[in-house]
Amino acid sequence: MSELLEKCASAKAAAQRLVSVSTEVKNNALEAIAAALNERSDEILAANRLDLENAEANGIRRAMIDRLTLTKERIKNIADGVLQVKALADPIGEVTGMWTRPNGLQIGRKRVPMGVIGIIYEARPNVTVDAAVLCLKTSNASILRGGKEAIASNTAIMRIMQDAAYGAGIPEGTLNIIEDTSRETATQLMKMNGYIDMLIPRGGKGLIKSVVDNATVPVVETAAGNCHVYVDGDADPGMAEKIVMNAKVQRPSVCNAAETLLIDKSAANEFVPVIFNALREAGVEIRADEASRAIYSDGVAAASEDDYYTEYNDYILAVKLVDGIDEAIAHINKYNTKHSEAIVTSSYEKAQKFLNEVDAAAVYVNASTRFTDGFEFGFGAEIGISTQKMHARGPMGLEALTSIKYIVYGNGQIRG
Amino acid sequence: MSELLEKCASAKAAAQRLVSVSTEVKNNALEAIAAALNERSDEILAANRLDLENAEANGIRRAMIDRLTLTKERIKNIADGVLQVKALADPIGEVTGMWTRPNGLQIGRKRVPMGVIGIIYEARPNVTVDAAVLCLKTSNASILRGGKEAIASNTAIMRIMQDAAYGAGIPEGTLNIIEDTSRETATQLMKMNGYIDMLIPRGGKGLIKSVVDNATVPVVETAAGNCHVYVDGDADPGMAEKIVMNAKVQRPSVCNAAETLLIDKSAANEFVPVIFNALREAGVEIRADEASRAIYSDGVAAASEDDYYTEYNDYILAVKLVDGIDEAIAHINKYNTKHSEAIVTSSYEKAQKFLNEVDAAAVYVNASTRFTDGFEFGFGAEIGISTQKMHARGPMGLEALTSIKYIVYGNGQIRG
Repeated sequence: MSELLEKCASAKAAAQRLVSVSTEVKNNALEAIAAALNERSDEILAANRLDLENAEANGIRRAMIDRLTLTKERIKNIADGVLQVKALADPIGEVTGMWTRPNGLQIGRKRVPMGVIGIIYEARPNVTVDAAVLCLKTSNASILRGGKEAIASNTAIMRIMQDAAYGAGIPEGTLNIIEDTSRETATQLMKMNGYIDMLIPRGGKGLIKSVVDNATVPVVETAAGNCHVYVDGDADPGMAEKIVMNAKVQRPSVCNAAETLLIDKSAANEFVPVIFNALREAGVEIRADEASRAIYSDGVAAASEDDYYTEYNDYILAVKLVDGIDEAIAHINKYNTKHSEAIVTSSYEKAQKFLNEVDAAAVYVNASTRFTDGFEFGFGAEIGISTQKMHARGPMGLEALTSIKYIVYGNGQIRG
Repeated sequence: MSELLEKCASAKAAAQRLVSVSTEVKNNALEAIAAALNERSDEILAANRLDLENAEANGIRRAMIDRLTLTKERIKNIADGVLQVKALADPIGEVTGMWTRPNGLQIGRKRVPMGVIGIIYEARPNVTVDAAVLCLKTSNASILRGGKEAIASNTAIMRIMQDAAYGAGIPEGTLNIIEDTSRETATQLMKMNGYIDMLIPRGGKGLIKSVVDNATVPVVETAAGNCHVYVDGDADPGMAEKIVMNAKVQRPSVCNAAETLLIDKSAANEFVPVIFNALREAGVEIRADEASRAIYSDGVAAASEDDYYTEYNDYILAVKLVDGIDEAIAHINKYNTKHSEAIVTSSYEKAQKFLNEVDAAAVYVNASTRFTDGFEFGFGAEIGISTQKMHARGPMGLEALTSIKYIVYGNGQIRG
């Protein structure tokens, strides 16, 4: 039997047993995992050195080496994250509604685990822990398939988590990592219908497209973010500047950062010079339409149609003047990736219109798009940000890792 | 532009406009559709005759011709179904939760349409109406792709629905049927990412497998039902007989009918003769294991391993004796399709154990599996029964055709 099939079968069997594991046992296991990660950090660091040596030998670029690198302190932060998940309420078992039918049947809707969750991700060893413990907290078995660049680190981390969790009473087979990091095995994982109940890709555009194109198991598409801030003619200019700058430069590499700024023409003469100066001071490259360059062109490139479709994840911002809120909404709904969109306005009517008509996971009035995040939303954790509409949308907390089951109490009812 | 791409683009544009259409306008459109179906039934019947003539010329089997046939009365029933959907509460716009974060952001979770829903189905013209009106009620645009056997009927029905709905203020492009019934076009529909937000196959195993294997858009898998009734040693024999007979013979062709009967060994000597006699009298072919044939073998075939995997949808029942509830649950979780499962027992402990440990969309104590249905569950309607765990599970009512959006009210918040 292949490694993949063996681990899928073992995860499926474990998932069946996990439905009878109590919250207490799961929490004890999470505590044991956190402790073991700290206690055995030397093992993890030794494995991580192997990955780093390989990365350097293979000429991997600096940014990826940074993401790959673990230290005692980073491991402690990861372990602290496990304790935060432990502290969250267990969503499993909650009956979110129960009703009685005229024939006396009592029907309840109960929150249950998904079963087996597959996660395909790139070279961040912290995802190995995050993903495994979020699945464990929700009584799901997990099959992780991380990038080959982090395989030594991931395997060491997984061994430590397995020892700790299984020692605390979690069924063997609950936690799995695929050690064969070939592309073929990843593609096979995407087609394990009957074993995988949900597959979550975490990573760049290429990875997500590959999963969406190849998977036959149910997928939650995550995280491309072509986000906009629209500064309305009725905006407070100070608030608008603060929000635009935060959405663009506070952390440009992430999916909830802004990529295009739309400005109402009626505010442009005053606002364009102010915001372009501030952006340039912060080192942001501006790519703007002709109308805004007519107001301020110094060091400002011309935007192409492509720019409006681009998620830069960098110190670059596209800019366009629009003729009021209708054009702003039409532009956003045409170019966005349904992630996070913000309006800055003092108009009640336009705020409501923007909230209603913009199609995105999170729509903001007078706040930065940067808040689209499981922690910032109060979910305590997240496994990714869904940009599809099925199953989960926006930050995916613990509930996004659950399904439901109808439990029906009868006393002899048959259908007439 | 191909017919498919044109209709997808037009549906996407309509979906955007549908978010601003009121419940009143939608309900008026549903009433107009119901009226028009009755008033223009001669048009539908003329088209239906074309389909029936083709079916007979092509030697289509009797059962399919029955499903294809429309009469004035059947059209009236379909129109009455539209009025029932009109009477349901509109789920769109409900804010199912709102909370305030420490930084003052108010975050609400609002129910919104999916956008564009694709439905691929076989030769039942009533599905054309059901699917279109359930999507319309939930402010979704729909793209229907029915079987070629019903294309004349479906096209006539669609034209009538479009006239009625667009006349009542629904945006043009909301209702679509693909007139090109080639397999290639169906496969293209499954890959229209960026246009189709959810794809629902309704039909037989082959259709569903084709959609699951080929689709790159999000899919809800529906309706294969290999359902079980487990008669426990603590069951009331009279209740058990009534439930088994109802689950098997009340309507054997549907997905929530029982396909395998499991009997606790401790009850077998008494229960096997009673139930086998009753089944044979009802014309049910029994395929049983050796242990039950040792009790009653007259006219009872031997069950093969394959029988336990088979959804007969017919007057056939597989039977197996099991050694108590653990073996029953293990058998069900191995062979079932996660649809509907029932236990008959008077034991509180075993009832709870069965509800907890059996993995299925609907799990019953002391009731027939035949109740897994949107109407029987009180949802008022259904578009299918999901057998996957993502997004929706069990009967899919109006809520299953919705997504959510986070609406965030700020007053200048930025992320630190």
